[in-house]
Amino acid sequence: ANRKLLLLPGDGIGPEVMAEARRVIDWLARSGRARFELAEDLVGGASIEATGKPITEPVIERALEADAVLFGAVGGPQWDSQPFDNRPEIAILELRKRLGLFANLRPAPVFDALIDASPLKPEIVRGLDIMIVRESTGGIYFGEPRGIETLPDGTKRGINTEVYTTPEIERVARVAFELARKRQGRLTSVEKANVMESGLLWRQTVTALGAAEYPDVQLSHMYADNCAMQLAKNPRQFDVIVTGNLFGDLLSDLASMLTGSLGMLPSATLGAPDAAGRRHALYEPIHGSAPDIAGKGLANPLAQILSLAMLLRYSFDMQEDAAAIEAAVSNVLASGMRTADIEQKGTARIGTRTMGDAVLRELDKL
Amino acid sequence: ANRKLLLLPGDGIGPEVMAEARRVIDWLARSGRARFELAEDLVGGASIEATGKPITEPVIERALEADAVLFGAVGGPQWDSQPFDNRPEIAILELRKRLGLFANLRPAPVFDALIDASPLKPEIVRGLDIMIVRESTGGIYFGEPRGIETLPDGTKRGINTEVYTTPEIERVARVAFELARKRQGRLTSVEKANVMESGLLWRQTVTALGAAEYPDVQLSHMYADNCAMQLAKNPRQFDVIVTGNLFGDLLSDLASMLTGSLGMLPSATLGAPDAAGRRHALYEPIHGSAPDIAGKGLANPLAQILSLAMLLRYSFDMQEDAAAIEAAVSNVLASGMRTADIEQKGTARIGTRTMGDAVLRELDKL
Ligand SMILES: CC(C)[C@H](C(=O)O)[C@@H](O)C(=O)O
Ligand SMILES: CC(C)[C@H](C(=O)O)[C@@H](O)C(=O)O
Repeated sequence: ANRKLLLLPGDGIGPEVMAEARRVIDWLARSGRARFELAEDLVGGASIEATGKPITEPVIERALEADAVLFGAVGGPQWDSQPFDNRPEIAILELRKRLGLFANLRPAPVFDALIDASPLKPEIVRGLDIMIVRESTGGIYFGEPRGIETLPDGTKRGINTEVYTTPEIERVARVAFELARKRQGRLTSVEKANVMESGLLWRQTVTALGAAEYPDVQLSHMYADNCAMQLAKNPRQFDVIVTGNLFGDLLSDLASMLTGSLGMLPSATLGAPDAAGRRHALYEPIHGSAPDIAGKGLANPLAQILSLAMLLRYSFDMQEDAAAIEAAVSNVLASGMRTADIEQKGTARIGTRTMGDAVLRELDKL
Repeated sequence: ANRKLLLLPGDGIGPEVMAEARRVIDWLARSGRARFELAEDLVGGASIEATGKPITEPVIERALEADAVLFGAVGGPQWDSQPFDNRPEIAILELRKRLGLFANLRPAPVFDALIDASPLKPEIVRGLDIMIVRESTGGIYFGEPRGIETLPDGTKRGINTEVYTTPEIERVARVAFELARKRQGRLTSVEKANVMESGLLWRQTVTALGAAEYPDVQLSHMYADNCAMQLAKNPRQFDVIVTGNLFGDLLSDLASMLTGSLGMLPSATLGAPDAAGRRHALYEPIHGSAPDIAGKGLANPLAQILSLAMLLRYSFDMQEDAAAIEAAVSNVLASGMRTADIEQKGTARIGTRTMGDAVLRELDKL
């Protein structure tokens, strides 16, 4: 049976970069490596324009049926005035929730060819390779009660609730422990156990799981404020980091920025495997929809293409094909071709399509 | 009448660095600049040892009566096994709450002499001068309900509540707007209004206050994850940042780390002024108690001394004396003297006491 992929290009540069990933999917078929059954649908602002909603029930159903979802980016100034619960980003939150995508994997590697683009000194980031595992269906993003209420005296009160249960903590920690095992064997769990009881439960639960099932993984704990500092001071001390939804949002973006190549970074968000080992999964570049450069053919498609590589690796265990795509991207960078976002002295500036061409050419050489 | 200061040296290096600040207080008296009535008391681990509690009611009352509190640092491995609500840090949270210290001011300047200590490239941080205003008596640090409960099936659930009311947001935003007015006239308000209703209320309230009372201040809004990235990418874009308790915890520590001189940075935490313009206030270095080097005479006392300068400036409007202390510290740095934490090639390593001597010598020259 063919593998089913749902492509959700979204808004802004989403469709442009997705088009290049699609050419890599075509290449996989052409070269006899893998055949996918493709469907494409609307999400984010594009969906609001067509249907009034950032994501519709049929699209969620198609995502539930797919073997994997490849997502582009959503949002733009046109939709800034949408009500809170109808913004383009709601599509991402809905997909995470409805597909049970609780483990957001955010690799933050430094590409040798791009090391000078890091705001950090090169001696601090050379060889950096962090994996942040962010819980993504719980915590303050989804906790109830929430909302804005008006008090008797006319003032208002905004409320959100951070909630984590032991099973929620265990399942995401398990993903992180497993990854650590395949990497350098070190896991740092991050919370504010000194101030928040939910963080204290997080720490206790991760500690117990580590002792019971992963004694071979070296586990340490860090407060979130200290983690932000340590990422800036000495990011190479980290192998895998596991943390809640809100801290993960800040810390993974910070780590990404430190690599100096936001336009290069993919992400995966995984659900729980069923009895047959199948799980829902969504893959997306970490960059946004970049409305300022949308439609101009300037966007960097490499994060979208690397998201496809993650998709092959985590949803279909196609390690070799994933590695081939990653090698092609490295080779393109090494050859000095750059989209505007990663341009440096002495490199050649090219557009979205030409970058896609370059990746395909490298793939053909492999 | 004498001005009343309460000194709370705390644990670890707290007493050592406080001793040097105290010598500067003596110098202020000796040189006829200002006389203070000093009291000193126990806080943190030292208080746990003596009384069983991280801070006692009489100490809180003394703090309420004082014109200002100068705080050292608390904590250490001896107290890691204290119950959640009896840890040394509780003293800080209690003082913030009981004294109504809602506005935590965290300057993050880059000292020219220490620019190479920043993990960021010098061209990114040269001349950096950010002021972060962190709300410090509300949000998820204090919100109810909170705690860990056991569910019928035996699993546990950790809960914390993020709550902000319009008056809480307005009063801290006002402090930030006023500071922006005296600085470069720019304020960035930071939240996650795209995900949290409490952040949405924060954004709406700050926007309304700015339009009504501070039209001369250039106000912008930023999501917390983006702020973490922008601090790493281009920190000089910021003048004043205002944010809630939890985001402020991470972002202010990150900004401090980017300056490269944690051991140099003071902070102020202010309450609301009464009719006579008097307000409670606490001043403390941002560094911790550094148990590993405590008692060895190695700690850098400059953050504690600069906290005293902030105290003179914000609690007693002694602008000149504050500036004198700051100038003395700059001159000492320029002369190449360094404690171990800020040592560089070509500088002379000195200890805590010698650093205090050097500051006093510079003060005498002024
Ligand atoms: C778009 C938004 C809801 C989202 C988040 O805050 O999780 C984004 O910042 C992310 O990290 O995917
Ligand atoms: C000690 C701790 C309670 C505190 C906090 O999280 O607020 C500290 O990190 C700080 O920033 O003052």
